[in-house]
Amino acid sequence: MKIVVLGGDGFCGWPTSLHLSNLGHDVVIVDNLSRRNIDNELEVSPLTPISPMSVRLEAWKRVSGRDIRFVNIDIAENYHRLLTLIKEFKPECVVHFAEQRAAPYSMKSSWHKRYTVSNNLNATNNLLAAIVEAERIETHVIHLGTMGVYGYNDSGVQIPEGYLEVYVRTDDGDELKQEILYPANPGSIYHMTKTQDQLMFGFYNRNDKLRITDLHQGIVWGTQTAETAMDGDLINRFDYDGDYGTVLNRFLMQAAIDYPLTVHGTGGQSRAFIHIQDTVRCIQLAAENPPQTGERVRIINQMTEVYRVRDLAKVVSDLTGAEVHHVDNPRNEAPENELRVANDSLLRLGLEPITLKNGLLSEISDIAKRYSDRCNRSKIPCVSYWSKR
Amino acid sequence: MKIVVLGGDGFCGWPTSLHLSNLGHDVVIVDNLSRRNIDNELEVSPLTPISPMSVRLEAWKRVSGRDIRFVNIDIAENYHRLLTLIKEFKPECVVHFAEQRAAPYSMKSSWHKRYTVSNNLNATNNLLAAIVEAERIETHVIHLGTMGVYGYNDSGVQIPEGYLEVYVRTDDGDELKQEILYPANPGSIYHMTKTQDQLMFGFYNRNDKLRITDLHQGIVWGTQTAETAMDGDLINRFDYDGDYGTVLNRFLMQAAIDYPLTVHGTGGQSRAFIHIQDTVRCIQLAAENPPQTGERVRIINQMTEVYRVRDLAKVVSDLTGAEVHHVDNPRNEAPENELRVANDSLLRLGLEPITLKNGLLSEISDIAKRYSDRCNRSKIPCVSYWSKR
Repeated sequence: MKIVVLGGDGFCGWPTSLHLSNLGHDVVIVDNLSRRNIDNELEVSPLTPISPMSVRLEAWKRVSGRDIRFVNIDIAENYHRLLTLIKEFKPECVVHFAEQRAAPYSMKSSWHKRYTVSNNLNATNNLLAAIVEAERIETHVIHLGTMGVYGYNDSGVQIPEGYLEVYVRTDDGDELKQEILYPANPGSIYHMTKTQDQLMFGFYNRNDKLRITDLHQGIVWGTQTAETAMDGDLINRFDYDGDYGTVLNRFLMQAAIDYPLTVHGTGGQSRAFIHIQDTVRCIQLAAENPPQTGERVRIINQMTEVYRVRDLAKVVSDLTGAEVHHVDNPRNEAPENELRVANDSLLRLGLEPITLKNGLLSEISDIAKRYSDRCNRSKIPCVSYWSKR
Repeated sequence: MKIVVLGGDGFCGWPTSLHLSNLGHDVVIVDNLSRRNIDNELEVSPLTPISPMSVRLEAWKRVSGRDIRFVNIDIAENYHRLLTLIKEFKPECVVHFAEQRAAPYSMKSSWHKRYTVSNNLNATNNLLAAIVEAERIETHVIHLGTMGVYGYNDSGVQIPEGYLEVYVRTDDGDELKQEILYPANPGSIYHMTKTQDQLMFGFYNRNDKLRITDLHQGIVWGTQTAETAMDGDLINRFDYDGDYGTVLNRFLMQAAIDYPLTVHGTGGQSRAFIHIQDTVRCIQLAAENPPQTGERVRIINQMTEVYRVRDLAKVVSDLTGAEVHHVDNPRNEAPENELRVANDSLLRLGLEPITLKNGLLSEISDIAKRYSDRCNRSKIPCVSYWSKR
């Protein structure tokens, strides 16, 4: 299959590109290197020593014999080059990771709010408009959404895969059953853009019959996949900083350098998780099982386990002896919430999840401890606040 | 009250600015003249001979003795100037009309889709981010939304004012009552941006406690208000072209020049309407009755009557003797739909609607007939299509 991976230099995009290439697909990576540039802005580096794109691709050719093409395009800014690529390469599938993906980064300042909104929404709209303009409506778009579109649910209702069955009372007093897009309740500007993306997918799907799969992903943990582990130059990025480091990876880093595990608030927030290896397999499964033309947007919850943050800290603490510290929560959110999430689609397609308890130890020894001399301790705390204090 | 009107040179923004100024408010108009520039692009002129902004403002000073300040800012592009204005002028209220507002225009080409998305979403986000950055969270934002956020409803349920009561079955089999934002079903890229705006309003309202009123307006008809009729140089724009001319104004124009009334499809589409004079009074009522800080986004349906398009054509035909022609519908929509809409809020605040049957004749004689020599007949048909044919 001919596949374009937008954002193929990032934490999820890079291992996805390799995984799809390894399966024999013809992969083109599109990226504007924004994630590396944001590292410069934030004055951080990933814990793992990632190689430049050309070195990555040479290493991949060396170990796999396969070619991946790389094109540097800012798809939010340069519509015409994206359009030309779609017209000429004629991908059967486009995997869309090309959005600013950190909630704390999106809340740092007005500039960061505005960048996230403009970049993410224009990127998505440009992609959809280009597919229509190129008359390639059969192209399957796989988008990385987020569990965060559902917001912090505490209703006692399991989160469905995208669509919620509700009953509406008609004026005659009848009950009318309707299936609606799950009401959005985003917790940050970043999450908000993903709820706005959903409305674009819905529109282009209805109006232009585009085939779209939206994967609402939980928090990704882990670093390496089978393919990124094949050569030192293929290593995936591991972020531990307060903006881009997700909660579990930050705990692992903290444990590795004898820094207390910093739990925001009571740690009663429940979160959904998935290992990076499962992420790339999920995208493969989504690519191999596209919706039909005319089918509504397919929404799949891409997560395997739910943990409360304090329980996660306890798991890491029990494994490593690290202390747990509670700090002020920078986010505006409920201190405690339950979370139950349907993830039947991926299990039905054959995903066999990697569980946290089985993968954590190697993550600590192979990544967090091994590269701990590269850690800048001052970058660990979250310094983005959701509101003025 | 100090009021900024964003988009104060447009069809609704201009009469709103005059109305608020006439009531004694201190009004600043912000506009980038995009609507006049789009006239250049489409090679059309409004039927009515509108004056340049400086001439408009001199005329207003002459007849009312009042000053309105005008600032030319593209608020989607020039965040910093908007921020400075909010910091220095310290408006108590900002009325936000600064969005591309024609559904056919938004569907003309990829460029028009992309312009509408980028302009509308960045404008709204820039405004909200600027209010937060300026630490002016008490500023009341009044946004012109659209009835089109609800989509073409045919469920037998009256369209509520923004929020819909639904019942969800919990896993225990209980029924849980929830009030949700009415599920969005936009019919064009333009309407889609207004559904995306709603998600921004919800987020900034929850996270930053912004005070927001979102007015979901029906199709506006009529041209003049009490204030725009006070001097020839104050005349409001009247658009009859296939992109910006709304259905009733196009019928009036067609009747005035003996052009058949062009009904799209069966004309069974029901639409909500409001007269421009009522629009400006509604905005006054909204400005005088702001939500409290901490109150959720207040959503008001700004419409007074519902007509099917074919019935509207009949009303105009009966008044004028014009023929009715049915032409292909360029839109992707249901051929027939019912529409019942709650509009209690504005009636409760004291609006006394101008009905179509009372206002139409003067509109035909004072505007459509009077300026009919300015009409370019080739611009009447809608030439934007929702999908490739």
